[in-house]
This record gives sequence, structure tokens and C-alpha cells, in this order.
Amino acid sequence: MQLIIGNKNYSSWSMRPWVLMKALDISFEERLLRFDFNPDSAFYRALATVTPTRKVPVLVDDGFAVWDTLAIVEYLADRFPEKEVWPRDLRQRARARSLCAEMHSGFGQLRGLCMMNIDAELATVGQRLVATEPGLAQDLARIADMWIDAIAQSGGPYLFGDFGAADAFFAPVVMRVTRYGLPMPDDLRHYIERVQAHPAVHAWITDAVAEKDFLDFEEPYRDVSGPVPVLKR
Amino acid sequence: MQLIIGNKNYSSWSMRPWVLMKALDISFEERLLRFDFNPDSAFYRALATVTPTRKVPVLVDDGFAVWDTLAIVEYLADRFPEKEVWPRDLRQRARARSLCAEMHSGFGQLRGLCMMNIDAELATVGQRLVATEPGLAQDLARIADMWIDAIAQSGGPYLFGDFGAADAFFAPVVMRVTRYGLPMPDDLRHYIERVQAHPAVHAWITDAVAEKDFLDFEEPYRDVSGPVPVLKR
Repeated sequence: MQLIIGNKNYSSWSMRPWVLMKALDISFEERLLRFDFNPDSAFYRALATVTPTRKVPVLVDDGFAVWDTLAIVEYLADRFPEKEVWPRDLRQRARARSLCAEMHSGFGQLRGLCMMNIDAELATVGQRLVATEPGLAQDLARIADMWIDAIAQSGGPYLFGDFGAADAFFAPVVMRVTRYGLPMPDDLRHYIERVQAHPAVHAWITDAVAEKDFLDFEEPYRDVSGPVPVLKR
Repeated sequence: MQLIIGNKNYSSWSMRPWVLMKALDISFEERLLRFDFNPDSAFYRALATVTPTRKVPVLVDDGFAVWDTLAIVEYLADRFPEKEVWPRDLRQRARARSLCAEMHSGFGQLRGLCMMNIDAELATVGQRLVATEPGLAQDLARIADMWIDAIAQSGGPYLFGDFGAADAFFAPVVMRVTRYGLPMPDDLRHYIERVQAHPAVHAWITDAVAEKDFLDFEEPYRDVSGPVPVLKR
């Protein structure tokens, strides 16, 4: 099984199935395609041979391509029923899927304003954005509510007990919260630390920081043209 | 089981689980909440008691709320394993989920420019939009490709054989194609007719046309202030 991903520092959607498969000990070969949004780039040419959407991530299982993160996660649940991709309980499973579906189509302000950038320390940017963008604060409030509610219902330590698809879906949000210094309730401090410390997430972070392949179109807040990235303002 | 929906003429997301449940003969009580985007409206106050997202549709099963269309569809597949919500074949099922996930988070131009309006005849609007909005033509091209490919793989008559979740997900697209007169390849004429003629879809269309509850904020192209809606230009 091969998982095609983008740059680890930036590709929040790639991070989700990667950390889920690592966490559940589902073995796969990683194929990293360097982001390049030029339509004639090697990135798009390589992707076009496996998926009509030309987006990462893509899971390729014995020549069969599954695209879109939600469909990949459901495919893993189908292929590996012994792994706990989703909670075993019907209602917990439904709730986990509702939260992942919200993430899949929503939180536009958080995603657009606070693009994932694991290498960067952007607390001053985050502070400014929270003060000026009401939609961002609304996104964060909804995320805090859903996390607190899920942990209260399941008893933790992760959203639905053990680390699963929902935690993988929100791992890039944890990256944004910590890198942009976004305010979250104290009740969630342990969860945020626990996700970052999880071996699968930690392995992704380590790779992302080691990557040092800075792309101008992924860096609205840093000048990455020099030897070391510097904040634009 | 109760399905909470918005106006049938406009609510494309409500249409999806409604036609799926009707098509698969899953019995439910319908609760229609009239759209009203004022934060203090009866619409939002009623929704706030069942879902934190304050969006339709919501499925309520013995007091337990499942929100977001994708999560509702997966919940139905879990609750009614004897019904063919998804294709039985693992790869066909994965492909159906990829297409639904694409619909769930994508096709922004089609969705934004051609809001579902089953009552309306908007062919002149559609013609203008297709000529002036390259993103709309791209969305339509991708949809045509995925439908042609799915029908070729499954043998039809619907996307993955019998009418299922993927057809329900694209039923509102069929509404847009026919109401806005959007160009689609001739190969898809039979599929488009078949979806509209399906008893579940036909029942929704009949209700939508009978509704005659025209809302200004859902009508960018018609003046609905008079006794009969008229095209704005």
C-alpha cells in the first residue's frame, strides 16, 4: 500500500491518513511529491497518473487509487476491520464521523488564515488574526466545544478513547493552535499536548521540521527567500 | 427516526439523505424547518436544540442527533446493513465514497453560482454563467468525467449499479444541470433523466415545486417579491 502525500511541513490533508496509519500500525510506503501549483509541474504530472482530482493525499492499494482523506479513512476501516479506525460503539462512531465531516467541509477561516506550517513560530501573527478576524474566533470556539464534549463523553484520553480517525483529522488543527499560539480553553491543554506527543504525530512533526523545503506560496507570513525564514512583519 | 430538513426547493444538502432514505425504503418522519438566516430566527432556535452546527440536515434517531450529510449516510449504512447504501464491492464502495467526498468539500463554483432552485427555469442564467465563469465549466467537466467513468465501471443504470448514496449525493447536481440548462455530454442524458424519474427524487421534486415559499436570499436571479417570480435580467 502506498500513500502519496505533499510536503510534510505544509500538507495538512496528507498528515491525516499518514498519522492514522502509523498510529494503527498499518504498514505503507510513503511517496512524497513536492508541492508545485504550476499546472505543468512534476507534482501535477505525477498526480494526474493516479487521481483525477490532482490532490494529495492518495492511497494506492495494489494499483487501485482511493482519493480524498475521508474516503481513504473509510477504506482503511473497511480493509482493516480489526484496527479501530472508528470507535466500536455505533453512536460514538457516528459522532466521530460528524466531527470529521465538519472538518472536511468547514472551518474555512482557520484553514485559510492559519495555513499549517509546522516549522514556523507564528504567535504574533496568530495574536493579530484572532483580534481582527471574528470568523477565526468562531471556528476556534466550535473546535474547543467539540473536543471538550467528545472527551467528556468518551472519557478520553483522546477524542473517542484511543487515538483514531477523529484525532488524526484534528492533528493539523493542533499544529495550527500551537504554531499560531491560538487561544484554547485550559481544559484542552492536556489533549493538545497528548496529540503532539503521540508517536505517530511526533514522527510527522520531526520529518516536517527536518524538511526545510520552504515554498513561497505556502508562506503568507514569512519571507523564505533567504537562508533562514524571517517574519514579514 | 426523524430527518430535519430545510426548504425542499432550495436545500440541496437536505435532499441527499431524504431521497436516499426514500429510495432504500428506510422509514422516517420528516421535519421541515423553513430557512431563515437571521441568527434569532425560529429556524436557528429549533436547530440549536439538536445540533451545534445549526445546519440542516440532521438525523435524530431515538434522541441521538447525527449531523452532516456524509456522517448521516454512514450512520444509515451502519444501522441498516441490509440496505445497499454503498456498493457491496470494496473497490466500488471506495470509489463511491471518493466521489461523495469530492462533492462534500468541492465544486464551489457550481454550488455558489448555481444554487439549487428546483422551481426555477434559469437556462438563460446558466448560459451566461457557463460563458463567463471558467471555474463553472471546470466543475461540470469533472462531474461529467466521474459520472461517465462510474457508469462505465459499474454497468449502470445508476452510478454504481442500483440507486445509492452516490446518486443521492449528485441528485441536487442533476437539479442544477436541468434548471440552469448546464451543458453535459450526450452520454449522460439517460442518467440525468433516470435520476429525475426515480420515485424518490420525483417525490422530492413534486414537493419542492408545490412548496412555493420563495425566499429572497435564495434567489439571486429572480425577483420573488411579486405574486409570481420573475427573472431579474
